Amino acid sequence: MSSIVPTTYPQAAVEEALAAIHFDAQGLVPAIAQQHDSGEVLMMAWMNRAAVAETMLTGRACYWSRSRQAPWRKGDTSGHIQTLVDLRIDCDGDTLLVLVDQTGVACHTGRHNCFFRAIRDGAIETIAPVMIDMETNGKDKT
Amino acid sequence: MSSIVPTTYPQAAVEEALAAIHFDAQGLVPAIAQQHDSGEVLMMAWMNRAAVAETMLTGRACYWSRSRQAPWRKGDTSGHIQTLVDLRIDCDGDTLLVLVDQTGVACHTGRHNCFFRAIRDGAIETIAPVMIDMETNGKDKT
Repeated sequence: MSSIVPTTYPQAAVEEALAAIHFDAQGLVPAIAQQHDSGEVLMMAWMNRAAVAETMLTGRACYWSRSRQAPWRKGDTSGHIQTLVDLRIDCDGDTLLVLVDQTGVACHTGRHNCFFRAIRDGAIETIAPVMIDMETNGKDKT
Repeated sequence: MSSIVPTTYPQAAVEEALAAIHFDAQGLVPAIAQQHDSGEVLMMAWMNRAAVAETMLTGRACYWSRSRQAPWRKGDTSGHIQTLVDLRIDCDGDTLLVLVDQTGVACHTGRHNCFFRAIRDGAIETIAPVMIDMETNGKDKT
């Protein structure tokens, strides 16, 4: 578990943030999750208005699962929650940067972050190890 | 200008990357630009197939401007180019992480990155200074 005290916001701040965010035609905004201290980019997922509000009010990152068309409280299945440290809105209001403290791993493959494929010697290679066997330890439903 | 030697890839590697990327219904994939050494998340923009290929072949980040519906070779107007260091594809193939060396600033507002709005004391505040007057120095056409 994270030893970080979650950042939470009052309802008025949530309303102000929601007003500043430009949700797309599907009512979604991309949210980049970054480990607050190391700077590691963990994953990118999508939030709808309810997910932004839930994240800000509870201090725990919640997304909208496009595949399941349902709220996705990250870590509910796996325990690999993201404790909110700070929320940033970009210049155009169409992307969020969510600074978090990741418990366990961010990626459903059991790797610490989702960006583990790179080109090496002209071919795609996996450049990060599986840290946790997610089949055994409860994969998140993304 | 960046002192980094740009990373470029052979055509075969570009084809392999393009095959691994799941472009959305508009033919686009979100690309997160991160400063390679500091870990600073600079911006998020979109690439189509041609932009991915141009980025990989030239070693300079190129995007697709949704507002202009045109290729956007970042820095053409401002000189604030992004030299490619490494390209990462995420687990689902639907987001890219582009490690770059940013010349000048990433944001069209003249701030070093685009994520300069945060909630402080219950209200949205600008937490990063303008580094360069982009009106004077040539704003990028995003």
